[in-house]
Amino acid sequence: MTRIRFQQSLDELKEQLLVMAGLAEQAIQRAIEAYRVRDLSICDLVSRSELAINRLERDIDQAALDLLAMEQPMAIDLRFILSVIKINADLERVGDSAKAISDRVRNMEQMAIVDLPVDIPRMASLAADMVRKSLQSFIEGDAELARSVLAMDDAVDAMNRGAYKSLTEVMEQQGHLAPQALNALMICRALERVADHATNISEDVIFWVQGTDVRHHKSVTGGRDPHALA
Amino acid sequence: MTRIRFQQSLDELKEQLLVMAGLAEQAIQRAIEAYRVRDLSICDLVSRSELAINRLERDIDQAALDLLAMEQPMAIDLRFILSVIKINADLERVGDSAKAISDRVRNMEQMAIVDLPVDIPRMASLAADMVRKSLQSFIEGDAELARSVLAMDDAVDAMNRGAYKSLTEVMEQQGHLAPQALNALMICRALERVADHATNISEDVIFWVQGTDVRHHKSVTGGRDPHALA
Repeated sequence: MTRIRFQQSLDELKEQLLVMAGLAEQAIQRAIEAYRVRDLSICDLVSRSELAINRLERDIDQAALDLLAMEQPMAIDLRFILSVIKINADLERVGDSAKAISDRVRNMEQMAIVDLPVDIPRMASLAADMVRKSLQSFIEGDAELARSVLAMDDAVDAMNRGAYKSLTEVMEQQGHLAPQALNALMICRALERVADHATNISEDVIFWVQGTDVRHHKSVTGGRDPHALA
Repeated sequence: MTRIRFQQSLDELKEQLLVMAGLAEQAIQRAIEAYRVRDLSICDLVSRSELAINRLERDIDQAALDLLAMEQPMAIDLRFILSVIKINADLERVGDSAKAISDRVRNMEQMAIVDLPVDIPRMASLAADMVRKSLQSFIEGDAELARSVLAMDDAVDAMNRGAYKSLTEVMEQQGHLAPQALNALMICRALERVADHATNISEDVIFWVQGTDVRHHKSVTGGRDPHALA
């Protein structure tokens, strides 16, 4: 393969990953819309997206593996391909989270819609924003932008902890609302995971661009371990 | 690097991953022990393990990257190194799950110990068994054993769904037990994720040994998507 042809293959791999990212982001938006208007037909769309995402994940992995096997790339190209493999896995899990949210919406179908002390659309918008920015940092190879995503994760974690606290109180004081409160809490957990995946993607971008592994370096974000569960 | 030296490096990488696996498995066992006897000093051990796991994850990733960069391995060696990178990430997340469980135990410190309709030690033992078997399949390059782990995941998923149902009922009927029930439910979720990671590891072993990507092929396990959230 010539250098030009190899560069084209890298560009194609990047394009495929961007398609994957678009599907994952759309799946999250649809899942939250399904929650907002309690529409099961949107849940069906999310299920179909998840299948498409899973197929694409396999294709991208195979393409990356083929490039590694045939081209034996060095340095920054090697780090780029490894980043694609890792980002690919994170995007697939964003799709899983969207599916998890839509499963919760299905679960709530027979339940009365009640007012709960949690702003899920706001949390969703922040998490989706992180995914979008992490992908933008990947497109532009912008480590600064990637670092700004790491900082956003603290806000989502704080929202998730707040939701946990306020929804637990609902369950304690109004037991009959426990099923709804629990579903809302699980949706918050799924969104917090989406934010974690955006964080992972940003770390992979920094690694690719700068050759620096920033995982678990708390000083980078000034906050909690980005991988910590709620 | 001679072929012999390269083979030694691959063996060293495998050894490092097994140390990582041992730490991850121990962290889960400790976290469940901390839950069983409500001992915060064991939670401290889990936190320390998690830090060690995070450090080792970086070291292993770097070693794998160095081998890829310097050796440009082909075919099965390439697939082996890529599998190490993926298994490494899954083991790190098993460590995260252990930490999440021990965080729940800390959260329960001030709460009365109550009898809940869920057998967490049994679920933990099954999840830990899956991790152990998936690693054994990795050590022995045994795709058959890896496939048997995929089948076990359905049992853990079923336990998690059962726990969700029975603990929701507790919350509905005995609101004052909601905080304990919710913590138990979060521990079940964390264990279900551990089982998912064992499933991922098994899929990576099959990929390494047979060059087959079995992800999302439901017919392999005869069951649900191994990545699905509860």
